[in-house]
Amino acid sequence: MQQEIIHYLKQAQGYISGEDISRELKISRAAIWKYMQELRKDGYEIVAVPHLGYQLKGSPDKLLPQEVHFGLKTKVMGRRIFHHETLASTMDTAFRLGVEGEKEGALVVAEGQTKGKGRLGRSWSSPKGKGIYASLILRPQLSPVMVPQLTLLTAVAVCEAIRNAVKAPATIKWPNDILIDGKKVAGILTELSAEMDRVRFVVVGLGINVNTPLNVLPEAATSLKHVSQKHIDRVGLLQEVLLKFEQWYESAKRQGFGPVILEWKKYSSMLGKRVRISDQSGTVEGIAVDLDESGGLMVQSDDRSIVKCISGDVITLR
Amino acid sequence: MQQEIIHYLKQAQGYISGEDISRELKISRAAIWKYMQELRKDGYEIVAVPHLGYQLKGSPDKLLPQEVHFGLKTKVMGRRIFHHETLASTMDTAFRLGVEGEKEGALVVAEGQTKGKGRLGRSWSSPKGKGIYASLILRPQLSPVMVPQLTLLTAVAVCEAIRNAVKAPATIKWPNDILIDGKKVAGILTELSAEMDRVRFVVVGLGINVNTPLNVLPEAATSLKHVSQKHIDRVGLLQEVLLKFEQWYESAKRQGFGPVILEWKKYSSMLGKRVRISDQSGTVEGIAVDLDESGGLMVQSDDRSIVKCISGDVITLR
Repeated sequence: MQQEIIHYLKQAQGYISGEDISRELKISRAAIWKYMQELRKDGYEIVAVPHLGYQLKGSPDKLLPQEVHFGLKTKVMGRRIFHHETLASTMDTAFRLGVEGEKEGALVVAEGQTKGKGRLGRSWSSPKGKGIYASLILRPQLSPVMVPQLTLLTAVAVCEAIRNAVKAPATIKWPNDILIDGKKVAGILTELSAEMDRVRFVVVGLGINVNTPLNVLPEAATSLKHVSQKHIDRVGLLQEVLLKFEQWYESAKRQGFGPVILEWKKYSSMLGKRVRISDQSGTVEGIAVDLDESGGLMVQSDDRSIVKCISGDVITLR
Repeated sequence: MQQEIIHYLKQAQGYISGEDISRELKISRAAIWKYMQELRKDGYEIVAVPHLGYQLKGSPDKLLPQEVHFGLKTKVMGRRIFHHETLASTMDTAFRLGVEGEKEGALVVAEGQTKGKGRLGRSWSSPKGKGIYASLILRPQLSPVMVPQLTLLTAVAVCEAIRNAVKAPATIKWPNDILIDGKKVAGILTELSAEMDRVRFVVVGLGINVNTPLNVLPEAATSLKHVSQKHIDRVGLLQEVLLKFEQWYESAKRQGFGPVILEWKKYSSMLGKRVRISDQSGTVEGIAVDLDESGGLMVQSDDRSIVKCISGDVITLR
């Protein structure tokens, strides 16, 4: 009901009477008063003027379900939101929900993380109320070997969402980072639970440095606020990410990952550059020449042979 | 302590006195008497003769930890056993243990399963006390895309174990079945939990029709007892499977999956034959010509093009 009241107040121009709310939402005046108290506790600035009624003057800078759902254009993605003030990691919470059978599109969001995860066991700086830390549960009809493509798809969606919402020239660094001016502004994680031939569920995780002060970020990172020199609306950005993700996800269901790969190449910060990629099996150095259908980066080494890299740490050399 | 007593009785030739047991295992005579009662309840046939002591005359036909551990030659695989009379599925129980952090080599065994799992959501007939239904937890340092090779490795281990323990001409049908005389005698399942670049854990599941009567099996299946016309020792077979698996697993860690693939080809029932393979993306028909390093089956279709199949249902046509 809080969500309905907030959406009603948001839609209203100016004041709206308790009678109207009562009639529209079919709750008593006393109940309305009680809900307003609760909403104020959540950080909503609601004024009440005798004979005029209620007016919403300000919303909290939080990724609350009622905020994200207001104006959200997706059909499935983010339609169910588990919002937490603080979590160890949205990945772990979402993975547990996946094991318990939570449906596709469910989104776990935290204002802050105490053990935000990066790739390869690293951490992700997650100060409270500053970034977007979210994990989406998916149940795609895919073989587990196709899951790396979902990471690329997410990178494309996040890159486009940042370009649309913030007008910043975001690029993609294979396999899972979003850069602006060569500095990391967002990262994508993918975890999966699978049988041999089919995925049971995937959790796609997202960390975006939105209004994060640079002094709490690593040297090689930046934030959208720093880049654009203004405070960024986290709710609007998350809505745009969810919408872009859903559009690409639906496209991939219909026509495969081909169009995603093409779009990925457009935003790549790496193709044509000299790179060094290290993983468990060793180090490859050469020119990043292409991305293949399975999400592997094709690197041409100095002896002209082409090596396909499926994971690893990348350094762009020049 | 039950395990120690059973192993002590098994090692003994003939009767062994309560005094000896008491001294050797450092427990009281009264405690020994209590354990003997419990062991008899588990199905052990233990006789006690005044002035002579105890003798083990018979062990239950069960995959109890003390049975499997007696004479087990592995270092890691099966060293911890979770034995159940009945489970819905050893896969589900092992997967939950994996999520909770259970270590590599832990084995979940059930005498019977009520919802034994086959591939692609099918069931596996699991009558009580007749087959081997077991799931092994692994924590390999692998990229998720390498996990199909673990299925092949397990197939090789099971095929060899059956050949050694039962002297039956087992062959491998890609990707996960063991056949004798063209009929299915064992199946292998693999489930995984993974991050983008690395596996968190894998559960390898095994169903073997050991002493299973044909009338509870599907048409296309057989059992080791039927093939060899004698009752098969399930404990001995499971020990052999665990040993072969551990040897191949260690080999793969040291030198990769190359030797596994070679061995796999030796036992393949399919290479050189005409096959039809169906999966979500369609149907491929042609000659199965090779297995590649990633575990994919290479099929040469009639237009001479080579298609790599990574999963699917296979029918051998002739």
